[in-house]
Amino acid sequence: MPELTEAESLRQSLIAEKHAQATRLLQDQGVDCWLTFQREGSDVLLPYVLGVDELVSQSALMIFADGSSVAIVMDYDATVVESLFDEVHAYRSSWREPLQTVLRERNPARIAINYDMYDDGIDGLTHGQYLLLHQALAEIGFADRLESASPITSLVRQIKTPAEVERMRRACEITVHLFDDVTGILKPGMTEFDIYEYLHDQMKAYNVRASWDPAYCPGVMSSKRESGHTPPTRTPLEPGDGLRVDLGVIAEGYASDLMRTWYLAKPGETQPPAEFQRAFDTVRDAIQIAADTLRPGVSGTEVDSAARTYIERAGFEYFHATGHQVGTRAHDGGLLLGPDNVRYGQRSRGTVQEGMTFTLEPVFGPIGLEENVVVNAEGCTYLVPPQREIWVV
Amino acid sequence: MPELTEAESLRQSLIAEKHAQATRLLQDQGVDCWLTFQREGSDVLLPYVLGVDELVSQSALMIFADGSSVAIVMDYDATVVESLFDEVHAYRSSWREPLQTVLRERNPARIAINYDMYDDGIDGLTHGQYLLLHQALAEIGFADRLESASPITSLVRQIKTPAEVERMRRACEITVHLFDDVTGILKPGMTEFDIYEYLHDQMKAYNVRASWDPAYCPGVMSSKRESGHTPPTRTPLEPGDGLRVDLGVIAEGYASDLMRTWYLAKPGETQPPAEFQRAFDTVRDAIQIAADTLRPGVSGTEVDSAARTYIERAGFEYFHATGHQVGTRAHDGGLLLGPDNVRYGQRSRGTVQEGMTFTLEPVFGPIGLEENVVVNAEGCTYLVPPQREIWVV
Repeated sequence: MPELTEAESLRQSLIAEKHAQATRLLQDQGVDCWLTFQREGSDVLLPYVLGVDELVSQSALMIFADGSSVAIVMDYDATVVESLFDEVHAYRSSWREPLQTVLRERNPARIAINYDMYDDGIDGLTHGQYLLLHQALAEIGFADRLESASPITSLVRQIKTPAEVERMRRACEITVHLFDDVTGILKPGMTEFDIYEYLHDQMKAYNVRASWDPAYCPGVMSSKRESGHTPPTRTPLEPGDGLRVDLGVIAEGYASDLMRTWYLAKPGETQPPAEFQRAFDTVRDAIQIAADTLRPGVSGTEVDSAARTYIERAGFEYFHATGHQVGTRAHDGGLLLGPDNVRYGQRSRGTVQEGMTFTLEPVFGPIGLEENVVVNAEGCTYLVPPQREIWVV
Repeated sequence: MPELTEAESLRQSLIAEKHAQATRLLQDQGVDCWLTFQREGSDVLLPYVLGVDELVSQSALMIFADGSSVAIVMDYDATVVESLFDEVHAYRSSWREPLQTVLRERNPARIAINYDMYDDGIDGLTHGQYLLLHQALAEIGFADRLESASPITSLVRQIKTPAEVERMRRACEITVHLFDDVTGILKPGMTEFDIYEYLHDQMKAYNVRASWDPAYCPGVMSSKRESGHTPPTRTPLEPGDGLRVDLGVIAEGYASDLMRTWYLAKPGETQPPAEFQRAFDTVRDAIQIAADTLRPGVSGTEVDSAARTYIERAGFEYFHATGHQVGTRAHDGGLLLGPDNVRYGQRSRGTVQEGMTFTLEPVFGPIGLEENVVVNAEGCTYLVPPQREIWVV
């Protein structure tokens, strides 16, 4: 056995927490087996089953309601799973017979697999893999035992264990350092592209990567531009411009997703123009209203509605959801804090639970402000202190 | 429109090449429409349709046999697709009606979608997305027009256009620089972990990322250790040890996957021990034999067999395939240069075509040697010069 690095040891304890959580959920749902069937890291749920997204071979990773776990992997992948699963079958030629043997012996009546029509965060099984698994199970008369694992995986993904919350907090802290770095260098004449490149350099120095496509992370936009997914421009910033930066980083596998707002003062100016200030204050207060509403038992639409109503009464509007979950990715699926409309479907109808982590971002026009919170027993806690005032440079 | 960066302009010309290639393949196959249906960058084929893997909204990207193309995306994603598709429908609430309208109007008899039971590189559609799409097409009586896009996507992925080959060559060149950097610092007393960390630092400096899970890329293994996916150890290297490094980088979206071998000489030694040298020479010559065999029209098994027979006659053996394709990922699916057995299925039965790019890696025991080649009209070309001698330090 190779020596355990600290990172490897942290991975093992985090995965032990997640397997224990999955076992409880299987028992709650009366499901006998949660089966992740993947190759080449294809399943988005792999970080929760295994903690790494690199498992090359065709693999079947099973967690049973009695708390036991079985991994079927090709021989060269055995070391990746051996410390995390009770039983490892390392095959050289075919996964099919060992999988059929394990399932025949344990005879699970309900086998949950990773697909979901609406939530990409738990829709990990590809259609080709589904056909392959279905064929193998049909051969032993088990094909009709397959069902969607959504009731289990949805909560495995959404409810963070203590080790996961600590990783997310760390990602947020690094993001705040990066925002401070921007404050240190920001001045008129710089372009959005300059700041974008500077942040990429700093992210390398901090040993973190972007939470979404690095072509769009960070999003750097002057107040002259509308919102949207557009690359940074090379137009110099001028005194009198606002600036918003949308930035998330992944540190040790967990993501942040924050936005901050600056204002470049004109000579003699000590504060931003009244209308810019009023827009910022409205967003800031809407975020606090959302945070005050967010607690176990409320629905996603209630939180959305609290923030949206406040924004609209102030004469502004926004069309996206008030917040989404963050986890191993910036957009982490699951319960949304959004309206109940055709665009978002029913994703906001569910109820908030302790351990969920959300963004709060009821933003519009020139204002970039987005906070990350974790739901606790009575309400929610900011992972890092929220921005309360525009940063004037 | 934001100013086009050079990277953006290169992306547009590469994607234009890929769309033209897809159109020819649709015509060859008599298929009317290739439909990529995805959300949140979920489809592995997105780099070929779009060149970026960040398209957040539920999207339908269609290429038709007449050469026209249509994208249906949510409004905020419109800028990502507008320069690449002839027709863009930006929706605010639902993708369903615009998709149904476009399909009804164009009335394609055969609609190819991205799933495959055996090749993960073209198995991009998730099972949940399949169910969602099937439901939407059933509403307009089109569900039975769906079929696997494998005959098209398999070649879109495997046959590289000139712009793609240039990007892969660049990734290989950077990898060679990184190997040279290792030669510059390697000495007894260093650990595998030291070299692993050093290469991560250098990869950051070169602005490239690992081609596979950075926990295992680079793979750094002393000759004392068996092959396999194991993390680097902290045991110091000693004079008399061999060292192999398995390293791939992604630069501008395209990957390399190379291996090199060093030997740490004992005092007074000018060359490695005879047995180590013989093992290296055997692999080196087997690679050249594979390269001499590799040309349009041969099967993957023929190339594998040529190298494997040579290795076995020399008294060695290896259990993996002789080579796999490289592209936007290190393990890129498609035709394999491997044996025709249960482990690899029928993946090596197809025939080699011009424009395919392979690794050649008939390695065993303490030797790390892996080259990357592109198939041309008569044979194949190394993307960078192969290693011919053990690097002694």
